[in-house]
Amino acid sequence: MFKHDKQLLHEVRVDASNPNYAAMLQEQLGGPQGELKAALQYLSQSFRIKDPAIKDLFLDIASEELSHMEMVATTVNMLNGHKLDAHNATVGNIEAHVLSGLTPMLTNASGQLWTAAYVNETGDLAADILSNIAAEQRAKVVYEYLHRQINDKGVRETIDFLLNREEAHNTMFREAFNKIQDTGSLKDWGVTKDSKLYFNLSTPGGQYFNADNPQPASFSNPNPQNPSQH
Amino acid sequence: MFKHDKQLLHEVRVDASNPNYAAMLQEQLGGPQGELKAALQYLSQSFRIKDPAIKDLFLDIASEELSHMEMVATTVNMLNGHKLDAHNATVGNIEAHVLSGLTPMLTNASGQLWTAAYVNETGDLAADILSNIAAEQRAKVVYEYLHRQINDKGVRETIDFLLNREEAHNTMFREAFNKIQDTGSLKDWGVTKDSKLYFNLSTPGGQYFNADNPQPASFSNPNPQNPSQH
Amino acid sequence: MFKHDKQLLHEVRVDASNPNYAAMLQEQLGGPQGELKAALQYLSQSFRIKDPAIKDLFLDIASEELSHMEMVATTVNMLNGHKLDAHNATVGNIEAHVLSGLTPMLTNASGQLWTAAYVNETGDLAADILSNIAAEQRAKVVYEYLHRQINDKGVRETIDFLLNREEAHNTMFREAFNKIQDTGSLKDWGVTKDSKLYFNLSTPGGQYFNADNPQPASFSNPNPQNPSQH
Amino acid sequence: MFKHDKQLLHEVRVDASNPNYAAMLQEQLGGPQGELKAALQYLSQSFRIKDPAIKDLFLDIASEELSHMEMVATTVNMLNGHKLDAHNATVGNIEAHVLSGLTPMLTNASGQLWTAAYVNETGDLAADILSNIAAEQRAKVVYEYLHRQINDKGVRETIDFLLNREEAHNTMFREAFNKIQDTGSLKDWGVTKDSKLYFNLSTPGGQYFNADNPQPASFSNPNPQNPSQH
Amino acid sequence: MFKHDKQLLHEVRVDASNPNYAAMLQEQLGGPQGELKAALQYLSQSFRIKDPAIKDLFLDIASEELSHMEMVATTVNMLNGHKLDAHNATVGNIEAHVLSGLTPMLTNASGQLWTAAYVNETGDLAADILSNIAAEQRAKVVYEYLHRQINDKGVRETIDFLLNREEAHNTMFREAFNKIQDTGSLKDWGVTKDSKLYFNLSTPGGQYFNADNPQPASFSNPNPQNPSQH
Amino acid sequence: MFKHDKQLLHEVRVDASNPNYAAMLQEQLGGPQGELKAALQYLSQSFRIKDPAIKDLFLDIASEELSHMEMVATTVNMLNGHKLDAHNATVGNIEAHVLSGLTPMLTNASGQLWTAAYVNETGDLAADILSNIAAEQRAKVVYEYLHRQINDKGVRETIDFLLNREEAHNTMFREAFNKIQDTGSLKDWGVTKDSKLYFNLSTPGGQYFNADNPQPASFSNPNPQNPSQH
Repeated sequence: MFKHDKQLLHEVRVDASNPNYAAMLQEQLGGPQGELKAALQYLSQSFRIKDPAIKDLFLDIASEELSHMEMVATTVNMLNGHKLDAHNATVGNIEAHVLSGLTPMLTNASGQLWTAAYVNETGDLAADILSNIAAEQRAKVVYEYLHRQINDKGVRETIDFLLNREEAHNTMFREAFNKIQDTGSLKDWGVTKDSKLYFNLSTPGGQYFNADNPQPASFSNPNPQNPSQH
Repeated sequence: MFKHDKQLLHEVRVDASNPNYAAMLQEQLGGPQGELKAALQYLSQSFRIKDPAIKDLFLDIASEELSHMEMVATTVNMLNGHKLDAHNATVGNIEAHVLSGLTPMLTNASGQLWTAAYVNETGDLAADILSNIAAEQRAKVVYEYLHRQINDKGVRETIDFLLNREEAHNTMFREAFNKIQDTGSLKDWGVTKDSKLYFNLSTPGGQYFNADNPQPASFSNPNPQNPSQH
Repeated sequence: MFKHDKQLLHEVRVDASNPNYAAMLQEQLGGPQGELKAALQYLSQSFRIKDPAIKDLFLDIASEELSHMEMVATTVNMLNGHKLDAHNATVGNIEAHVLSGLTPMLTNASGQLWTAAYVNETGDLAADILSNIAAEQRAKVVYEYLHRQINDKGVRETIDFLLNREEAHNTMFREAFNKIQDTGSLKDWGVTKDSKLYFNLSTPGGQYFNADNPQPASFSNPNPQNPSQH
Repeated sequence: MFKHDKQLLHEVRVDASNPNYAAMLQEQLGGPQGELKAALQYLSQSFRIKDPAIKDLFLDIASEELSHMEMVATTVNMLNGHKLDAHNATVGNIEAHVLSGLTPMLTNASGQLWTAAYVNETGDLAADILSNIAAEQRAKVVYEYLHRQINDKGVRETIDFLLNREEAHNTMFREAFNKIQDTGSLKDWGVTKDSKLYFNLSTPGGQYFNADNPQPASFSNPNPQNPSQH
Repeated sequence: MFKHDKQLLHEVRVDASNPNYAAMLQEQLGGPQGELKAALQYLSQSFRIKDPAIKDLFLDIASEELSHMEMVATTVNMLNGHKLDAHNATVGNIEAHVLSGLTPMLTNASGQLWTAAYVNETGDLAADILSNIAAEQRAKVVYEYLHRQINDKGVRETIDFLLNREEAHNTMFREAFNKIQDTGSLKDWGVTKDSKLYFNLSTPGGQYFNADNPQPASFSNPNPQNPSQH
Repeated sequence: MFKHDKQLLHEVRVDASNPNYAAMLQEQLGGPQGELKAALQYLSQSFRIKDPAIKDLFLDIASEELSHMEMVATTVNMLNGHKLDAHNATVGNIEAHVLSGLTPMLTNASGQLWTAAYVNETGDLAADILSNIAAEQRAKVVYEYLHRQINDKGVRETIDFLLNREEAHNTMFREAFNKIQDTGSLKDWGVTKDSKLYFNLSTPGGQYFNADNPQPASFSNPNPQNPSQH
């Protein structure tokens, strides 16, 4: 069951309306590395997870990403201001001015509608957690790009918060990954000679990496100790 | 420049036509974890990479994934057999029987058309390599699912080869990841308190993981030695 | 902020696994009249609403629809059972068997990926509430179709609950609609002669309806009294 | 059978070419609240309707919406002018300048391709008519947004005509809705206690609306008398 | 302006309901080679055509394709019969049974929603007419595939009619193409050496075709004489 | 098997970075008439072709189109320059600045993600080759539009090369088409009276074309002689 609290997870503010930046920030509301994608990916994956600790982690983070989505949308809404004027919104999509009456939308910065094609779920914990670690890293990157292109202090504080939260999630997902070693798709790794070959198909160019000693993934930097259960 | 060799990367065969399994195997031709997605993701990412060793790796693997796609498509084509008969193709999409004249298509097993929404690229090497490691793990999982549902020996050999190649790519991408430590989005990790917090938003449930000591990702099992450049 | 409670809004159960019906029930998880669409439509619309009572209504129902989505997904998960076997899943999409490892997905019954094209938001309360009333009526209809095609008592109870909740939402949205008479797009209705014309473009056929006396919509059956605010 | 008359339903003109506004007006050609969507929704729904009066109404309006689409497209074509110059088309999508040679396209203002995901049809008259009433209200809203952002008198006259026609359709659909009381999904409304509950899931916030006395929808303002059949 | 005549362009009938074939025939209602695509492609292209004879041809055929769409939809509706029963609809998409209440839909046989990505328009008559000739040939092929998989005499007669009409359109478009020689993109053909080269990139394999003597396309079999204008 | 050569098929250069033109040129990377579409269409079609000469032709051109895609992407990458600045990228989609870190993407100029809906394949050689001839003509047209809107000499040289190559492919596909006369869907043309009718559905307007003497397509200008096999 989901419950909503009208208080935001973290307050947001903008120094001034900025319709062009509103369109840009839409990227993290309705784009492939955005908050809706993260929330729905983790939630979808959680439906079949049996390990209670990992299921709890996925649902904690899914709920937080939904809450991030609300923060991003609230910020976009403020940035959209109060005047329909597509002629002065020359960066990115203009749906706020012709379709949604300045309401934030489930699209990316250029108007592509959100699609579940962004969501990866496999029913295999190793694959899903790796997907999530990658998703968090990509989300961080997009926030960095957005941070560089805005001076508004209120917006920068919000982006800074969200970016750091993606790092936290990334860290936690890696911990969870290391906990599931030798399970699921991490088993039976590198059992045939084919798993050790390198096909050098792009030339000129050497073989700078190899797969001689194939082993499933594990991360070198899990947090040293886990908290006791609350 | 791309060149094509009519010899397959690895020969394929099927013991018998099997229109239902043809539809199922379409998943790895035109689905989100399939070969076309992998090929185009790595190729797209490569366009801006400057490090020559990593660029070479991405292009080697992109070329191989294109070659895998050709193997999968050739197998689907054999499995489709020679008779249009949607009434006997009751598993998955029926486009082979009504639209493509039994030619393999760029759709998944259920008929969803391939979309570039499956492709992740960020211009950041750390994020892109993590995306690729996750993609390889997911591709392995889907091949495992497909392997379990077919007895045809020819098909199983092909799937076995492809599955092991995904492991090899996974291993190589991890090596590349460890080589780029302290660059791009791996820098400046965990600098604010927000990156260390845990929001316990799903209850009941404790806090089984934490982010107390945030550090960027690195893998614990790179291959110990690199080959000399050829 | 969204919080998750691991207790479902309403408990669900199935008498037996049923992979074919699992695919059918996917329609209300990831289809155009499904729970995800409803949740995201009302949430998206709420971002710019100023009237606190209506904003609260939208967020109450959005949260409930998210909780419905969780109920539907949990049911689909149970129906999917424990065996990958696309050859025995001949009704609807087979992604559970080849892609998601039996995890519920954000697709409709036939495998079309969920898209934000299903979500209508205009920034105008009258248009948005009418959209929601229509969405609830359509959701009811789809649940009726699904109810007729299953004998499993557990599933029928869940569908019955959800169907009745859509009726409740429908009723509440109509109340809200009647409260906003003479606002937004309900103003200035029927001011030109063009709003009163009938173009009889399909023949043979008469003019069985007219627009002689155009007035904005209002519903005849609001609840007679409102509860006091809690 | 459809027949085409080269005379427009209502003549259109523009005072001057305006590539930016051409992109904006694309919203009502190929967007979710646009004329193509309306035409195809009503036409699709009509295929299974048995009531001859309602079927005639749907086909009359579907034909008119197709004719509206032609008016919008003709206007977009005029606004596109005669010069390919994406560098001076900085508002919205630029496909007219790089892809279609200034021909109107089946996209929205920001370039999203039209999709049948916009079309709702359920085979239930009550649900379909409510969908259409909502669609007409949304179309009116979008025309209001577009009207505010253009001074061209020719364009404003066309938008004014189209906006008033959406009101007329809205009125007529409401009449049709009231005629089908006690049929289809309007039957058996509110039979369980679940249909009367309110879940207060967003807090703080009271319960400003209720469902204590659930009844199916009916509109309070149908036209008092129907014309005789022609 | 479009007008609708309730008489079909050509009467349709089915010998018996056939839900599986209904799903298959959906391919020509909402698939890439179907009637909706043809109608909207020719209509969209027509908006900017100046040559009155060619514009008339495009609109004649667009109107006919809309009328074909109505024939196909009417046939699908008959084939869907009167019983919601997805469990007995094991070929192709099941949306008729879970979503549309047996109403024909704007999807292909496997449930992919119709998309304007199927529509090609360039503003160049030569490119557009070649697109249309190809579209008609593909439509013929799909009708052939569908014809082979049904014994119902009523359905076969309808398919036979539609297939022959695609041939007629193909013939007429070729006539129109030959009339526009030396215009638009047919001018300035083969002016650089690059237009005469052959890159032999797939090996082993020779060069079985060449481009030594590049000339724009023209068809060898136009109708010998044109009718006088009516 | 595909092999990659790091040398481009034809060198590219740009005189200066130009983020707006980078977005425009995206049209031929990820748009409906672009290089990715061409490559994947011909490759997909080739999977079931038996005629070795035609199969070789399709694979030669598919490989070349992949190589063109690489040229276009390399040019887009150069045009994107080195500065994330969506506020100065006011023409077309802004994903390079918010999502991809200036890496070329699989989208069109306005941000629509590439979709396999652009790819036509039928399993019938006549239909497929006509599709390809049309695709090459459209690609030429789009390059002409792009050529007119750029002064950069480097870019113009690249576009000129690519445009002329599309002409060469067009010529070669026509040769192949004429070679397959009397096969596949070219057989049994015009056998019923329906294939000779003209429906004059758009009025006013005469009948400027006819189908009195229906014959399958053939081109009047094939190259007079074929080269010997290499």
